Amino acid sequence: MTRPCNDTFLRALLKEPTEYTPVWLMRQAGRYLPEYCETRRRAGSFLQLCKNPALACEVTLQPLARYDLDAAILFSDILTVPDAMGLGLYFTEGEGPRFERPLREEWAIRDLTAPDPWHHLRYVMDAVAEIRRALNNSVPLIGFSGSPYTLACYMVEGGASSDYRCIKRMLYERPDLLHHILSVTADAVSAYLNAQIESGAQAVMIFDSWGGSLSAAAYQEFSLPYLQRIVAKLIVESGGERVPSIVFTKGGGLWLESIADIGCDAIGLDWTIDIGEARRRVGHQVALQGNLDPGVLFASADRIADQARRVLDSYGPHSTGHVFNLGHGISQFTPPESVTALVEAVHSHSRLSRTGSE
Amino acid sequence: MTRPCNDTFLRALLKEPTEYTPVWLMRQAGRYLPEYCETRRRAGSFLQLCKNPALACEVTLQPLARYDLDAAILFSDILTVPDAMGLGLYFTEGEGPRFERPLREEWAIRDLTAPDPWHHLRYVMDAVAEIRRALNNSVPLIGFSGSPYTLACYMVEGGASSDYRCIKRMLYERPDLLHHILSVTADAVSAYLNAQIESGAQAVMIFDSWGGSLSAAAYQEFSLPYLQRIVAKLIVESGGERVPSIVFTKGGGLWLESIADIGCDAIGLDWTIDIGEARRRVGHQVALQGNLDPGVLFASADRIADQARRVLDSYGPHSTGHVFNLGHGISQFTPPESVTALVEAVHSHSRLSRTGSE
Repeated sequence: MTRPCNDTFLRALLKEPTEYTPVWLMRQAGRYLPEYCETRRRAGSFLQLCKNPALACEVTLQPLARYDLDAAILFSDILTVPDAMGLGLYFTEGEGPRFERPLREEWAIRDLTAPDPWHHLRYVMDAVAEIRRALNNSVPLIGFSGSPYTLACYMVEGGASSDYRCIKRMLYERPDLLHHILSVTADAVSAYLNAQIESGAQAVMIFDSWGGSLSAAAYQEFSLPYLQRIVAKLIVESGGERVPSIVFTKGGGLWLESIADIGCDAIGLDWTIDIGEARRRVGHQVALQGNLDPGVLFASADRIADQARRVLDSYGPHSTGHVFNLGHGISQFTPPESVTALVEAVHSHSRLSRTGSE
Repeated sequence: MTRPCNDTFLRALLKEPTEYTPVWLMRQAGRYLPEYCETRRRAGSFLQLCKNPALACEVTLQPLARYDLDAAILFSDILTVPDAMGLGLYFTEGEGPRFERPLREEWAIRDLTAPDPWHHLRYVMDAVAEIRRALNNSVPLIGFSGSPYTLACYMVEGGASSDYRCIKRMLYERPDLLHHILSVTADAVSAYLNAQIESGAQAVMIFDSWGGSLSAAAYQEFSLPYLQRIVAKLIVESGGERVPSIVFTKGGGLWLESIADIGCDAIGLDWTIDIGEARRRVGHQVALQGNLDPGVLFASADRIADQARRVLDSYGPHSTGHVFNLGHGISQFTPPESVTALVEAVHSHSRLSRTGSE
């Protein structure tokens, strides 16, 4: 494996100097792009799109054709792992993902086993390999997974939830059962991410989207240790190159110090924390990824550039270890031209700051 | 005005010693109580219930008849103020509150004026007075309002939102328009809360439910200054008694120090921050209210008691300045007997801790 021509993203994650601040966007291949909607229509459904390596490859590359992004991210869904565990993932219009068999009975929980990613999630590995071939070493490819706690939320609730009452009942009443689910899921996620790395992923990100719905104490007991266990098992180097890891707990701004301690290379930040303050709190222990409010992209190009500069300046213009991103996935209502303005602003402002020309 | 027989809640807010830690629950008069559902059915709709002082009084008192709570809170809706501004509040089944005339056009924003609470919100003042009479000085009555930013979210979006894209566009593109809305709304909220105090409210709480959706910088510019302006205008003393104020920004755990600086008597905490850590950060500048995960109430009585003790012990068992509450409104799916267990655990554990018997 060789480093891609544009390895700015990987160098920033490893806190090496870069000529400018690299940028990519969570959910950059998504519904705000008309070409994505067109491919999805052709696929028939979101799930068929995820499960078809050729089409997953096609949509992964779409934002790179439009924008000067510094990384590609595998197009997939975080719920492929529980689906491979046999819970029966399906999507309903307007309601989002659901499971046919939510995980609530003790016997079903005790029966849960980690799937073999090379068998049950072969389509993901095929997509990773196909995307790597198509990228042809232009920019690095990010693999990803949901965190054990986030996956458990969906598995126990049976879908998205506003109050998480099934999993919270389990957490407080039967912590032993939840720990069992989390333990099996952490093993599944480790194997899944390592298979992605072996298939060609050059960095990996773990999305702990619902970790922020936990109390401080519950986060320390039910989310963080499983993130740590996964990070500890990740393949560190592939083909002579370091494979950096990014951990993103949405709503985790209060817990940055403890996240920095689990051994990941970078922390993803949502937009509620000032990135300069985050950097002061964690020092140079980890790189930071983020953290523009996705709502900024509803404004005009000039305002987008202003706000992007604020984030860059707050991080520190001459500093290493920053990957620019939104603080959350891009909204489906984002005008595509907003992304052009953002990428241009991040690249030009960070380049100028480094040369000291402004 | 005389202090109520049970003034534990007011003394805790003023950081005076109390024999035990007082407790009340956000949304304590709500759908988890069958008697509430019955009254609401009789009223015809949620809005008719809010606008009928006799029925609003009836539901306000219902949780006090069941539980040994240390405060009553006015039954009303945070959107009464924008409704009085002429936006046309209505409720649709399953979708929550909506406005007939969302605030988006510049001319409509420039036309916005603060309503006279004694005229347009008379029904709220009548409810406050009626509840005070019915309480007969047993426990104190809390008045409340939404914060300017939270009200503006609903006013501009036209209802609840998952991405706040209308108000975020305005915030980044036309901050002048948003500041105008917030300024008029802050005046409206000040007058509204003062009218509640003059009608008999003995403490007031401002719910900044959506402040946590802002970036750190935007919170400092668009929410906090308006909270500060309201607090500065509040009636401090009524009938010889201090009227304490509580400010609650959900998701505001990162910003506690700056909230403590605005002059409020207490800060409401959601459940994501450890209350002991919060106390160390703000010291004894303010009292703290919170912050049990509402999800705990889905567990059994023993677990509820365990978790309540954890919050009390984390705050510090012998300390003044703690009002026990949930970190968010009680869920409609809460078993009513869970609240019995919680109130009993808070009272007995805090009483024992203070006498040093355990």
